[in-house]
Amino acid sequence: MSVKTYTVEGMTCGHCVSSVKEEVGEIPGVTGVEVDLGSGRLEVSGDVTDDAVREAVKEAGYTLV
Amino acid sequence: MSVKTYTVEGMTCGHCVSSVKEEVGEIPGVTGVEVDLGSGRLEVSGDVTDDAVREAVKEAGYTLV
Repeated sequence: MSVKTYTVEGMTCGHCVSSVKEEVGEIPGVTGVEVDLGSGRLEVSGDVTDDAVREAVKEAGYTLV
Repeated sequence: MSVKTYTVEGMTCGHCVSSVKEEVGEIPGVTGVEVDLGSGRLEVSGDVTDDAVREAVKEAGYTLV
């Protein structure tokens, strides 16, 4: 288990933050998700691959930088 | 019954548009709602007061110009 940090591009409001949190939170093995709208910072706690996070962010409609 | 046009300030993405559509659509007497994200244009069909529209837009988290 670890905390991984990413940067998400394209979020413009709180709804966008919620969408990312929801999709990333549904990845098996994820135990926590924090998102900062201003910086695009995404912190994912748990046991998860970068590919899974990238896919979930894409599913929400955004892109990992 | 009529179509009234307003301008909404603060919408940044499709989620924002959905929020405004939902809140305004719940006003008694409203029969149709169209929102354009780019211009902020809000068209409300039905029998409704400006105050009710203003309140619904505020409830969604935005402001009528």
